[in-house]
Amino acid sequence: MDLEIRPATPEDVPAIVDMLADDPLGARRESPGDLTPYLAALKRVTADPNQRLVVVVRDGHVVGTLQLTLIPGLSHRGATRSIIEAVRIHADERGSGLGTRLIEWAIDESRRQDCRLVQLTSDNTRTDAHRFYERLGFTASHVGFKLKL
Amino acid sequence: MDLEIRPATPEDVPAIVDMLADDPLGARRESPGDLTPYLAALKRVTADPNQRLVVVVRDGHVVGTLQLTLIPGLSHRGATRSIIEAVRIHADERGSGLGTRLIEWAIDESRRQDCRLVQLTSDNTRTDAHRFYERLGFTASHVGFKLKL
Repeated sequence: MDLEIRPATPEDVPAIVDMLADDPLGARRESPGDLTPYLAALKRVTADPNQRLVVVVRDGHVVGTLQLTLIPGLSHRGATRSIIEAVRIHADERGSGLGTRLIEWAIDESRRQDCRLVQLTSDNTRTDAHRFYERLGFTASHVGFKLKL
Repeated sequence: MDLEIRPATPEDVPAIVDMLADDPLGARRESPGDLTPYLAALKRVTADPNQRLVVVVRDGHVVGTLQLTLIPGLSHRGATRSIIEAVRIHADERGSGLGTRLIEWAIDESRRQDCRLVQLTSDNTRTDAHRFYERLGFTASHVGFKLKL
């Protein structure tokens, strides 16, 4: 596979938002018709050196995205951990191994940044995703709590 | 209760590490006898404007700690979310309502920073903590996956 994984730019935002919206959960909460809040958010992400918002590009097309956040902290003897959020693969590309490549990139980048733990949460309803993460070596050791404000 | 919640300083590190270690899970992974890695980690935390590592002080004693991380992102229409990590209450103070005060501080601070979501993960074995977070309005909607590096 001839894939490039690189930082997201403003030109990638329409493709990223389309992927965020093309999802049973995302369809209810995204607004692909108005990109203004997404472009403002990309500025906040890009300004933070502990964020890595990346896209996967194949043949000039954005076919996947992921956000990795580095979180320094005191626990685990002062370990930095990373958190994976907003993993999306274009509908036409699912099952092609692209998700694995993207998560492996996130794990490799976490190692390069001396993280000792990679973590993520996945909605209880995404059972396919749960099997996917377990195959990649993750352990379902925690309950993920959310509070909407 | 006459409590102060304020940013952690290097002088607070011994008390924070004692609380991290005084825990069934923390006892196996912390080293209170050597504070060097914790002091280095505090520098990384303090240098990152999206981190809030706080302590709760009562009568001059550190009796609790919590880390709040702000994560800008594109999903949920460009929402910033916050993540709560490393919540610890001194053994002598548990059941006193201090944990509630600390989480409420984190929720209030998340609102002040325009977050639309507060999230956290809790080890599957910490069932008392799960009830505590549900009482505070959190929903156990996700599975939390971890990968040690």
